[in-house]
Amino acid sequence: MARIAPLSGFPELLPAQRVVEREVIASLSQTFELHGFANIETRVVEPLDRLAKGGEIDKEIYVLRRLQADDGADDTGLGMHFDLTVPFSRYVLEHAGHLEFPFRRFQVQPAWRGERPQEGRYRQFTQADVDVVGRDVLPFHHDVEVMAVMVDALDRLPVPPVSFQFNNRKLIQGFYRGLGLADVTAAIRVIDKLDKLPADEVARLLVEQAGATPEQAARCLELATIRVPDTSFVERVRALGVTDELLDEGLAELAAVVEGCSQVDAPSVTVEANLRIARGLDYYTGTVVEIFMRGYERLKSVGGGGRYDALATDGKTTYPGVGVSFGVSRSLLPLIADGVLAGSRPVPSAVLVAVVDEESRGRSTRVATALRRSGVPCEVAPTAQKFGKQIRFADRRGIPWVWFPGEDGEHTVKDIRSGEQVVADPATWTPPVEDLRPRVLTTTTEETTP
Amino acid sequence: MARIAPLSGFPELLPAQRVVEREVIASLSQTFELHGFANIETRVVEPLDRLAKGGEIDKEIYVLRRLQADDGADDTGLGMHFDLTVPFSRYVLEHAGHLEFPFRRFQVQPAWRGERPQEGRYRQFTQADVDVVGRDVLPFHHDVEVMAVMVDALDRLPVPPVSFQFNNRKLIQGFYRGLGLADVTAAIRVIDKLDKLPADEVARLLVEQAGATPEQAARCLELATIRVPDTSFVERVRALGVTDELLDEGLAELAAVVEGCSQVDAPSVTVEANLRIARGLDYYTGTVVEIFMRGYERLKSVGGGGRYDALATDGKTTYPGVGVSFGVSRSLLPLIADGVLAGSRPVPSAVLVAVVDEESRGRSTRVATALRRSGVPCEVAPTAQKFGKQIRFADRRGIPWVWFPGEDGEHTVKDIRSGEQVVADPATWTPPVEDLRPRVLTTTTEETTP
Repeated sequence: MARIAPLSGFPELLPAQRVVEREVIASLSQTFELHGFANIETRVVEPLDRLAKGGEIDKEIYVLRRLQADDGADDTGLGMHFDLTVPFSRYVLEHAGHLEFPFRRFQVQPAWRGERPQEGRYRQFTQADVDVVGRDVLPFHHDVEVMAVMVDALDRLPVPPVSFQFNNRKLIQGFYRGLGLADVTAAIRVIDKLDKLPADEVARLLVEQAGATPEQAARCLELATIRVPDTSFVERVRALGVTDELLDEGLAELAAVVEGCSQVDAPSVTVEANLRIARGLDYYTGTVVEIFMRGYERLKSVGGGGRYDALATDGKTTYPGVGVSFGVSRSLLPLIADGVLAGSRPVPSAVLVAVVDEESRGRSTRVATALRRSGVPCEVAPTAQKFGKQIRFADRRGIPWVWFPGEDGEHTVKDIRSGEQVVADPATWTPPVEDLRPRVLTTTTEETTP
Repeated sequence: MARIAPLSGFPELLPAQRVVEREVIASLSQTFELHGFANIETRVVEPLDRLAKGGEIDKEIYVLRRLQADDGADDTGLGMHFDLTVPFSRYVLEHAGHLEFPFRRFQVQPAWRGERPQEGRYRQFTQADVDVVGRDVLPFHHDVEVMAVMVDALDRLPVPPVSFQFNNRKLIQGFYRGLGLADVTAAIRVIDKLDKLPADEVARLLVEQAGATPEQAARCLELATIRVPDTSFVERVRALGVTDELLDEGLAELAAVVEGCSQVDAPSVTVEANLRIARGLDYYTGTVVEIFMRGYERLKSVGGGGRYDALATDGKTTYPGVGVSFGVSRSLLPLIADGVLAGSRPVPSAVLVAVVDEESRGRSTRVATALRRSGVPCEVAPTAQKFGKQIRFADRRGIPWVWFPGEDGEHTVKDIRSGEQVVADPATWTPPVEDLRPRVLTTTTEETTP
């Protein structure tokens, strides 16, 4: 079989790179669990009518058929999920009778989209989602809570500083309504183009597509330029002279979210109110957020989310929810490719147990068993080469320690970085704790993740 | 939207059930890492020509097409992997230049097969595979090692006792050849039916399909009935009077595997030589194994594997491998359905921090932050109901502790199982370590997994 080319859009990690992804997922999971969120996984397929809603995404859905179905009916009616929100809302509906509400869950799984691959955009990509869902009601304070959880979670990751940019749909809608705009929905859709089009072009579209007067368009743009790292946006919005009940509610909610997230002890996270964030096509009804990573603004957001008044409904019962998603693949793969993040070694082994000769392999295996009993990951050398070659074998894998079993029970262990060698007992010796597991290295500072 | 029916063959776990699956996967991963195996994940799709090899499995392959491809070319040429061996061998070939050999890896991922669902057989199911792969050569001792690793791994799981039943292809082939059988491959295929057909029927088929004389057929059956928990099979095979070089090699290898695995300190694992195990259609060339779970023999094997002399090849280089796979879904889902395994609670929270009134929610949040700093998973009550209701809220979720923030800094925490309540400081108090995380409960003995 010939040389194998990679499959575009389906990136795979080498073992040392996978160390980074695993540590990040473990860290996220640990934070979510500290905040009382339960982990679930959903099946990767959903009935097509649940996935395809006539939106932009439809043409990116992968549909499953059987290669050779016995009965000729090869279409399964199933497609692969393109996010974790659709399957989660279906999970809530399907299992509602067995869940306690408010239901707090996190989920870390791949999703699939048949889109054109580019940096940060893949056909298979992993996301980490955290949500709270209520039955019929969900108090607003969960908006603050869920966002604060993600602030805490991302602060603990070895990634560059991130910025949470918050807005609130009620604020936008209330402002537009108070302003007397004819078509609020169209206006939101137009304002969402501010990062692609110049301001005067957006103003023109507001007039053309949202029925705004030039004065109204100007005010919409003024609102959208407000971006502050605290609750001073309240004053600035008030200064625009628009009054509306929904606007008041939105201002209060956004202020609470910004204040709550700022109180989290998270030095590598910036929290801002950015009144141009709209998350155009999604069905958010209150809080919205987009997350950006410093130095990687070209990826656009590496995460986002918000409040849905109806994450799911079965006709009788409605399930309001609030959640936020972090793009694990979208953020990590560019960082790994750029060498910003790397695993310290491609193997879990902290120790290579050398083999004197094939006859005494059993003795080396017993040493390894003793080390593992103390929780030390290790492996036995595959061949009884000269010790120099066995040391080089360890060195190529980044294994820091080599153990030499003594014939008469006198063992020695060598730190191959320093060359220091000491007499040791396999039942009691352990390496320094920082050698026990592969670590995540960053180019800025060599950092250890626990 | 109407009530949602589950999708046959795509089982999903409730949060407390997912605790079991996660703990099992964490335990397996930990053991594999202690033995120096690196984790990788492969993409879930492979080019169809790599999956469909004209075998039985072909008609179970799920093929991907795009729902609405722009160019009408909706077929992607991709299918979902139906095991972890095919993608792993492709991964080795694709990334060989970046891997160190022998390459030791483990992989825990779902796979998909469009087969008829039944107990233990699902359309989406998770497997845990551990393999060692060499470049051109792979010393035999890795057969012993990999099997011993899985023995160690399954012994640490909270599942019923398992039995490893080993055989060796060289032993079978050498015996058949030494016996003068005309068609060795056909004979293996026939003998593999012994668990479905009576012995005399198998004898008849050996004559009919493998060109055996009735005497040869009788000897084949004698060989296949040998099943012992030690290396005494060597004597018994010798007593059948067949001599062959390959047979000798197979006997020595099987004896080494049985002996090596018996030496593992694994009280809940039985190791046997069972000379009827053939793993019919797979391309094994030496060691073969099937794993059975006590009380669940109806599931057939819950794992299996063996030695491939050519796991992968690119024409110039051949990669021999030895590995073994454990069916995580196949074994756990029936145990969970039968109530043999359960999670101790559906939420990670060990503590519910009560809320006195909505005005003081911030105080409760600060208590939670302090507890999390000590590594205590907790959540703040969603509403400021009467304390009795907040306690019942915790009780329904299996949360063992409820924290009452005192107005003047005098906090108390209550064990809602015993009703005992003590004054405590959120900066220093922690619950007993066994309350910190949800545990896996078994019906036989209430057991804790770390």
